[in-house]
Amino acid sequence: MAHALRIAARGLGRTWPNPAVGCVIVNNGIIVGRGWTQPGGRPHAEVMALRQAGAAARGATAYVTLEPCAHHGKTGPCAEALAAAGIARVVSALQDPDPRVSGKGHAILRAAGIAVTENILQPEAIRANAGFLKRVTQDLPFVTLKLATTLDGRIATANGESRWITGPASRRMVHAMRLNHDAVLVGAGTARADDPDLTVRDIGASHQPVRIVMDSRLSHSPDSRLGQTAKAFPVWMLHTDAAPAAARAAWAGQGATLLEIPSVDGQIDARAALQTLAAQGLTRIFCEGGGSLAASLIRAGLVDDLALFTAGALIGADGQPSLAALGLTALKDAPRLTLRETKATGPDAYSLWSF
Amino acid sequence: MAHALRIAARGLGRTWPNPAVGCVIVNNGIIVGRGWTQPGGRPHAEVMALRQAGAAARGATAYVTLEPCAHHGKTGPCAEALAAAGIARVVSALQDPDPRVSGKGHAILRAAGIAVTENILQPEAIRANAGFLKRVTQDLPFVTLKLATTLDGRIATANGESRWITGPASRRMVHAMRLNHDAVLVGAGTARADDPDLTVRDIGASHQPVRIVMDSRLSHSPDSRLGQTAKAFPVWMLHTDAAPAAARAAWAGQGATLLEIPSVDGQIDARAALQTLAAQGLTRIFCEGGGSLAASLIRAGLVDDLALFTAGALIGADGQPSLAALGLTALKDAPRLTLRETKATGPDAYSLWSF
Repeated sequence: MAHALRIAARGLGRTWPNPAVGCVIVNNGIIVGRGWTQPGGRPHAEVMALRQAGAAARGATAYVTLEPCAHHGKTGPCAEALAAAGIARVVSALQDPDPRVSGKGHAILRAAGIAVTENILQPEAIRANAGFLKRVTQDLPFVTLKLATTLDGRIATANGESRWITGPASRRMVHAMRLNHDAVLVGAGTARADDPDLTVRDIGASHQPVRIVMDSRLSHSPDSRLGQTAKAFPVWMLHTDAAPAAARAAWAGQGATLLEIPSVDGQIDARAALQTLAAQGLTRIFCEGGGSLAASLIRAGLVDDLALFTAGALIGADGQPSLAALGLTALKDAPRLTLRETKATGPDAYSLWSF
Repeated sequence: MAHALRIAARGLGRTWPNPAVGCVIVNNGIIVGRGWTQPGGRPHAEVMALRQAGAAARGATAYVTLEPCAHHGKTGPCAEALAAAGIARVVSALQDPDPRVSGKGHAILRAAGIAVTENILQPEAIRANAGFLKRVTQDLPFVTLKLATTLDGRIATANGESRWITGPASRRMVHAMRLNHDAVLVGAGTARADDPDLTVRDIGASHQPVRIVMDSRLSHSPDSRLGQTAKAFPVWMLHTDAAPAAARAAWAGQGATLLEIPSVDGQIDARAALQTLAAQGLTRIFCEGGGSLAASLIRAGLVDDLALFTAGALIGADGQPSLAALGLTALKDAPRLTLRETKATGPDAYSLWSF
């Protein structure tokens, strides 16, 4: 199952709206088939593994990181495919909360005389499927917030200079993280200040995540790098009803997808925005700031993980903070996070935290 | 030599003004004597190791982390003691830059017919002796700056609440770090805000570091915890000529040592302050903030190491920064540090950086 979870991770960022599943088929102690959810979400992991196993699937055990599907969607149900191939036993990490499955996959297997063992490495599977699970159960995507700061928590000098605070190793890791999320998200201020293209570069990327700007009035220029590349790779502009018609037309002309979101106090309602993204099928969002968007997501309790890159540099209190005001009145109300991992990335320190 | 360096570290924080040296004596592949500089700086490591070795020192090899001393101070020269004990070979990590030694120790050994191998694990020995070396060669102490911040670089909420941001494991580690420095240093603002006693608690400390406040006008109350404990454990108050006579008398009455330092723009001249502390014999200073003192030491290039404790919490830009303004005009002028180590301390992340 640990191996199935590892190969499942290969699909992260490219299987949405489907989960990234892994399947390993073992016959007489030998791995005869391995599969993971393919780009776009199909074929499913089980189908890939069964294809590889061929006749060796008969009498074998299949390890799957999520309950096999039970419904006829764009492909036939995997539970039936496993039964038809003569699989004798299925070891499953997690029941699929999707109402179209939700135990029905396991039931089909058992009805076909297959031995089913459930909930093996379940905590790891919950973590691996966190994006899919959150979308299905909460209608929200899993959000990873990235902060790249100095030792004193600054992201730019007083005059806005921010290239580069962290080193090449951290920036490569950021690109890899963009790739295992479905989409990259920034606020309008960051888009205007940095004119980023938010693509994944220099690591042999086979696809690009959706690039999203939260920009209530569509203030970011359609002639920006994002605008100029919107036909090549998807750009979604989230805005409110305050966005001028001319800006909407210009962005649409560049090939961007426009999504109108309800506003709160003239700003995009962060929760409504993420609900819209989940409804579009996105399961994992990588938010790269800036400080105002980060603070609004944190205040609304919408961030799941925080990836902190700390550079060995100091800017001082006249520099720009990584996070805007949270308006806390007592320390006990400060959001608390749990450390998952800390390591060096080149000259920088990396740490991953969960809310 | 690696073992000698390890036992040398036991003396850190309690041998000033002397270096914390380690000595291991090996005869026929067997360790027959081990010693490290004793509290107060004597007996020296070599004397301790020779005592333990006794007659087994004859024909043995002595590994020393610093060149044996050559001068008659409060004890006889260790170089002569090694020769008198019949040591056949000395392996030394580093020449002692103290002008009273500076090669003379090695010369005495060679003149006595002892084989001398120099500069073994020299980089490690330079690091281990950094405080002593800086005092002898630059008339300044080695300064470790501690910052304990949230993930966004804050040390307190807007209204000053700061207890506790980091957890018990980090606080214990801070106490252990106080103990391997000669002195703990804070600014007047931190002393007034937190009323700390800056002692080492709960880890079986056999001594207490000197506690120092940089307080130009002696604004911190003599009735504070520091004042009330100044007779039990040393407190040094650094001030300028602007300190009122009544405050000087009150602090002296509490048992504190008063050190008048030249001022710059009404503030204590940070470099002059550290030169004064080095002249008093201090080799290793542990600075625990606050943000203004930290910034003034960094601006003056007086900090050597930065120990960062990062708590899994967020306060936001309305919280208090860990570091005051540095007045940078370009990112290339930002102080850059090198990562030495990163690890978890309980729920927090710890990283050590060198300037």
